[in-house]
Amino acid sequence: MTVKQLSLPELVDACVDLGVPGVGLWREPVQSYGVEATAKLIREAGLAVTTLCRGGFFTAIDPEERAKALADNRLAIDEAATLGTDTLVLVSGGLPSGSKDLHGARERIADALAELGPYAASQGVRLAIEPLHPMYASDRCVVSTLTQALDLAERFPANQVGVTVDTYHIWWDDTAPEQIARAGVGGRIHTFQLADWTTPLPEGVLTGRGQIGDGSIDMREWRAYVEEAGYTGPIEVELFNDGLWARDGREVLAETAARFVEHAV
Amino acid sequence: MTVKQLSLPELVDACVDLGVPGVGLWREPVQSYGVEATAKLIREAGLAVTTLCRGGFFTAIDPEERAKALADNRLAIDEAATLGTDTLVLVSGGLPSGSKDLHGARERIADALAELGPYAASQGVRLAIEPLHPMYASDRCVVSTLTQALDLAERFPANQVGVTVDTYHIWWDDTAPEQIARAGVGGRIHTFQLADWTTPLPEGVLTGRGQIGDGSIDMREWRAYVEEAGYTGPIEVELFNDGLWARDGREVLAETAARFVEHAV
Repeated sequence: MTVKQLSLPELVDACVDLGVPGVGLWREPVQSYGVEATAKLIREAGLAVTTLCRGGFFTAIDPEERAKALADNRLAIDEAATLGTDTLVLVSGGLPSGSKDLHGARERIADALAELGPYAASQGVRLAIEPLHPMYASDRCVVSTLTQALDLAERFPANQVGVTVDTYHIWWDDTAPEQIARAGVGGRIHTFQLADWTTPLPEGVLTGRGQIGDGSIDMREWRAYVEEAGYTGPIEVELFNDGLWARDGREVLAETAARFVEHAV
Repeated sequence: MTVKQLSLPELVDACVDLGVPGVGLWREPVQSYGVEATAKLIREAGLAVTTLCRGGFFTAIDPEERAKALADNRLAIDEAATLGTDTLVLVSGGLPSGSKDLHGARERIADALAELGPYAASQGVRLAIEPLHPMYASDRCVVSTLTQALDLAERFPANQVGVTVDTYHIWWDDTAPEQIARAGVGGRIHTFQLADWTTPLPEGVLTGRGQIGDGSIDMREWRAYVEEAGYTGPIEVELFNDGLWARDGREVLAETAARFVEHAV
C-alpha cells in the first residue's frame, strides 16, 4: 500500500532492484492480477510475501452479513496460503450502524476467530489482530490497544491467532512495551509494521501516515521492544499517505528503504 | 466553547432562560470581557462557573518557555479564584518540536504540577488534568489515558491535582471505567464533561466533537460510572464543532440542553 501507484510487476521489479527481500500485499491488487499469477510473479523474483492484508470486519450483527464476512475471510486465508505467506492481518471492524456497544462488538470478533482460527491453522496461516489507533474505534476497528488484541488472541492457540504490532497505532501507549513483551512470550507477534505519526491529520484520518523519520515516533525504540521480545520476522513499512501516493512509486520506495536504514537500523 | 458565537452576556442570558445552572468558561473570552466583570456578570445572574479552561502546556524544554508557562498558569489560577470556580482544567501539552520523548514530556508535567499545586490549593483551586484522546498525543497532550492522568495526579494531594473525565477522549478505552472508580476513591474526579464521537473526523481533528446523541457514546453509561464513583458535581457539555458554531448560539444551547435531557438523564 505504501506504493499502491505501482503495478505488481513494477513493485516486484523495484523491490528486486533495491534489494528489498519481501513485500506485504493487499488483497485487492492481488485479486485483480490473479492470486496464482501473483504468487508465481513473486516466487520467480525470489521475493517473500511477508503478510496479506487484510481479513477481518467481524463486528456485524446481521446474520447474513456475518456469514458473508466469514466466507470472505476463508477466501483471504486461502489467498494467503496460495501466496506463500503465513500471516493474514486482521482489521477487526467498527461499531455496526447505530450501535454504541464496544464490548459486544469485541465479543463478536472472538466468535469469528473461534470459527476461523482452526481453518487458518489447517492452511498454515496465522491470523494477526491489528489494534488500530483509538481514532478508528467507531468506524474501522473496536480493538484499540495491544492489551485488547492480546486478550482476544490468547483465547486461541498462537498458531491460530496473534497480533500485528504497528508503531502508528500504539506509539502513544505507555503500556504497549510490556504488552509487546507479553506477546513475545506467547509467540504471538505475527508481524511488525512501521509508520510515523505526523500532524495535522487529514480529513477522515486515513491517509496521513508519515514517512519514517518525518514524525514523532522513535523507530529504533520500538524495534528494540519487539526484538527484545524475541521477534525475528520481517519488518514492514506501511504508509497510507496521499502525498507519497502522488509521487513516482519507485522514487517513494527508494526513499522509504533509505529512511528505514537511517531511522530503524 | 460549545456556543462560542455568543458573547458572555448573551451566554448568561441564554443559560438563565433555559434554566442551565452553571457554565464552564474559557480564558480568552473572559480575559477580553474582563475577569472581574465576568465574575460580576455571572454572580449577579445567579449562575455558577463550573470550571475554567484551560491551564497547562507544561512540556516545553526551553527554560524561558517553561517559566512563561508557569507564570501563565499562576495567572489562570488567579482567574479561576476570581471567577469563583474551584477547578482549572489542564491541557498538558504535546511533544516539543523535534522531540520523540513522551516519557520525558510527561515528567515535565509532573515538575510543573509540583510547582503549581500548592499555589492552586492556596487559592482554593484544584488542577484537573484532562487526558486527551490519543490522536492529540503529539501536538496537544501527551497524557492520553485516565491511567496516565491519575499516575500523575496521585503524586500530589487531591485538593491540588485531580482529573477531568471527558467522554470524548476516553470512550474507546475499556480500562477507563475502573480508572474512574480509582479516581473516585481518591476524590480526584474534578469535573465530568460530555461530547459525542462522530465520524468522519475533520482535518486537524479539533472541531468534530459530536452533539450529544449524534455519535457512538452511551452517555448514560459514562454518567453511571462517575456517579457510582461518588461524583456529585456539575456535568459539562463541551463541543468543538464547526457545524454548531455556524448556527444561532441560543438555538444550539437549547438543542444541547434538550439532548442532555434526552440522552444523559
